[in-house]
Amino acid sequence: MALIVQKYGGSSVADAERIFRVARRITDTYQAGNDVCVVLSAQGDTTDDLIAKAEEINPNASRREMDMLLSCGEQISIALMAMAIEKLGFPVVSLCGWQVGMTTDSNHSAARIKRVDCDRVREELDKKRIVLIAGFQGVNRHGDVTTLGRGGSDTTAVAMAVALQADLCQIYTDVDGVYTCDPRLVPEARKLSEITYSEMLELASLGAQVLHNRSVELAKSYNVPLEVLSSFTGNPGTIVKEVVNKVEKTYITGVAQDKKIARVALTGIADEPGMAYRVFGLLAKNKINVDMILQSYGRGESKDIVFTLAEKDVPACTKLLEENKQSLGYENLDVSTDVSKVSIVGAGMLGNAGVAAKMFEALYQAHINIRMISTSEIKISVLIDKDESERAVKAIHSRFFQ
Amino acid sequence: MALIVQKYGGSSVADAERIFRVARRITDTYQAGNDVCVVLSAQGDTTDDLIAKAEEINPNASRREMDMLLSCGEQISIALMAMAIEKLGFPVVSLCGWQVGMTTDSNHSAARIKRVDCDRVREELDKKRIVLIAGFQGVNRHGDVTTLGRGGSDTTAVAMAVALQADLCQIYTDVDGVYTCDPRLVPEARKLSEITYSEMLELASLGAQVLHNRSVELAKSYNVPLEVLSSFTGNPGTIVKEVVNKVEKTYITGVAQDKKIARVALTGIADEPGMAYRVFGLLAKNKINVDMILQSYGRGESKDIVFTLAEKDVPACTKLLEENKQSLGYENLDVSTDVSKVSIVGAGMLGNAGVAAKMFEALYQAHINIRMISTSEIKISVLIDKDESERAVKAIHSRFFQ
Repeated sequence: MALIVQKYGGSSVADAERIFRVARRITDTYQAGNDVCVVLSAQGDTTDDLIAKAEEINPNASRREMDMLLSCGEQISIALMAMAIEKLGFPVVSLCGWQVGMTTDSNHSAARIKRVDCDRVREELDKKRIVLIAGFQGVNRHGDVTTLGRGGSDTTAVAMAVALQADLCQIYTDVDGVYTCDPRLVPEARKLSEITYSEMLELASLGAQVLHNRSVELAKSYNVPLEVLSSFTGNPGTIVKEVVNKVEKTYITGVAQDKKIARVALTGIADEPGMAYRVFGLLAKNKINVDMILQSYGRGESKDIVFTLAEKDVPACTKLLEENKQSLGYENLDVSTDVSKVSIVGAGMLGNAGVAAKMFEALYQAHINIRMISTSEIKISVLIDKDESERAVKAIHSRFFQ
Repeated sequence: MALIVQKYGGSSVADAERIFRVARRITDTYQAGNDVCVVLSAQGDTTDDLIAKAEEINPNASRREMDMLLSCGEQISIALMAMAIEKLGFPVVSLCGWQVGMTTDSNHSAARIKRVDCDRVREELDKKRIVLIAGFQGVNRHGDVTTLGRGGSDTTAVAMAVALQADLCQIYTDVDGVYTCDPRLVPEARKLSEITYSEMLELASLGAQVLHNRSVELAKSYNVPLEVLSSFTGNPGTIVKEVVNKVEKTYITGVAQDKKIARVALTGIADEPGMAYRVFGLLAKNKINVDMILQSYGRGESKDIVFTLAEKDVPACTKLLEENKQSLGYENLDVSTDVSKVSIVGAGMLGNAGVAAKMFEALYQAHINIRMISTSEIKISVLIDKDESERAVKAIHSRFFQ
């Protein structure tokens, strides 16, 4: 007997038929003798409907009230799932974020979990009930409803798994595991049976979009094994854990692309100490995350700073930089959303200098121009033109995996 | 400056346009220098959609999970209204039942309020914020979401008014006050400027449906003045309070009908002590409320017990009585939903014997047969055939008010 936390996304609970399919998967796990705690996302259309209602009334609604509104989506999901499980004849109870002590900070719409007081959940599991928990939502110390931001239900699931010291945290999604590349783009992509937290983190943050990277970080910190699998097929998925038996023959785990990014260039910045701090300190203070950073060598009196960030942050970032043009002292601000980031990830590339060269060679042979390069111990990313993104992914994947 | 609690029903917040109309009414009250605390119901279609989703999955869902589901409706309303008020530029905060300490018993779907810890509301009012509260919902001592049952938002509003010691509790609805009769049925019906709690209670329980009677009971207990008025016109409504200046010339306040009732007859019951207790004790234990009760004189060995109850309780009541036929020892069970209750209400009828005679005379002249009669100090009700109900109301109203 094990304690298993499962998480099902919005598409898995989209209608009554899918809800029952998931309900049976949950009750099968329960009948096998496990304690089962399930985290659910909102039904996709529910969230869309709520957002549409809010937009109609006030497109600039406060984030506090948006959280109040959107958290209903998950509450509806858990109540409906509980009804389905009741119908199948199993004991079940649904609980919201505030009921399971999912305490967060007060950063509405992007709150971070501070503490989980899971007494209530334990109590219910002790009564042999299946426990359903509303994902994505929490409560701050003032008793206000918060939400964790995009993909937050994954984080809820891992946080519950950590708090309950669960044996396994299964993330059910609409793909049946982690692939070497997006299978819709590259049909030859292979499913990985195992992957390390670090590799998964890089893939998640690179736009592979299988798991929310905060959830992987959390799982890594507490060493909770994750499994990514499909709620439709029931096949074994991909296990994410600390150390992986490398039976793969290649050095890299996967190829990913992220097209929802933008490149910002500040040119003509004074070539003096502290300029990078001033730019990125300002952005950090305003909660704008940057990704790749490139600073040119100083050319005498001035230098350039180029960085990438999520496309959605462009308006806020542009406004901020324009408002502070004087104090930052740059000459020109140039923003382009016509870029894509393509990356390869793999713990196996560590200390293997040939990997980068192989990637650049694949791009060269496909006549794709590289705009920026960024590397970490287990990742190499390049910035290229957006319309060449798919071609780049295919070229790199076939170079490494064929 | 006063502290005013307002309540708006589902039709007042049905769409963006109506939400803004209500938002302006709220901010007008606030700008006039008042502290304003507003209780909202769910948008009508939201509740219908949620019920439809539940029905599709499990028509016999537990009441706990139904409460979890349906309470989202009010949460959506308060969040959207908060966004509208933000748009108008006023400080506002929305709060759910559990956030305002609306503590109830655990009788899911028909919970009763036990306590209101309104510290949070006071704190927000002190910050000069407009406070929006989700009606209809509460939380029990286990931390589970409960709902107060039909019309529960009125009760929420009065409970908040009591807890906050509000100067006035305004119930905005789709009618602009309390009338001597349903104006849709009798165009000559007059709007009352004032009515006593007791009269309002009788009218509410008799199917006039203007206010939930639990809310009136609560207002009466704590002597909180209520005002019933229209969210559309803004005209002065009807004040409900303890003592009313009787400037009306008639003895009665209003005429009401209730067609959603049924008559149950148990015939051939042993004429011995304790039979009524056994029948009604059994029903009470199963939370089935009965209304009018008529017991025939014992005819030698047996007697009949006839009573009325809400139409919706017929299946449960019939099942219960059939299961206990042996122990109750009756001969026949006869149930009819083809009945209507027509009543006149008025503190003025107390000690005026002619009122009943005048009502019966009106029915006689209209050739309407009376099946049962029930009286209280301020009310006379008769049970008649359902298809004669409207005719009876008109005949009685014109006899008293013309």
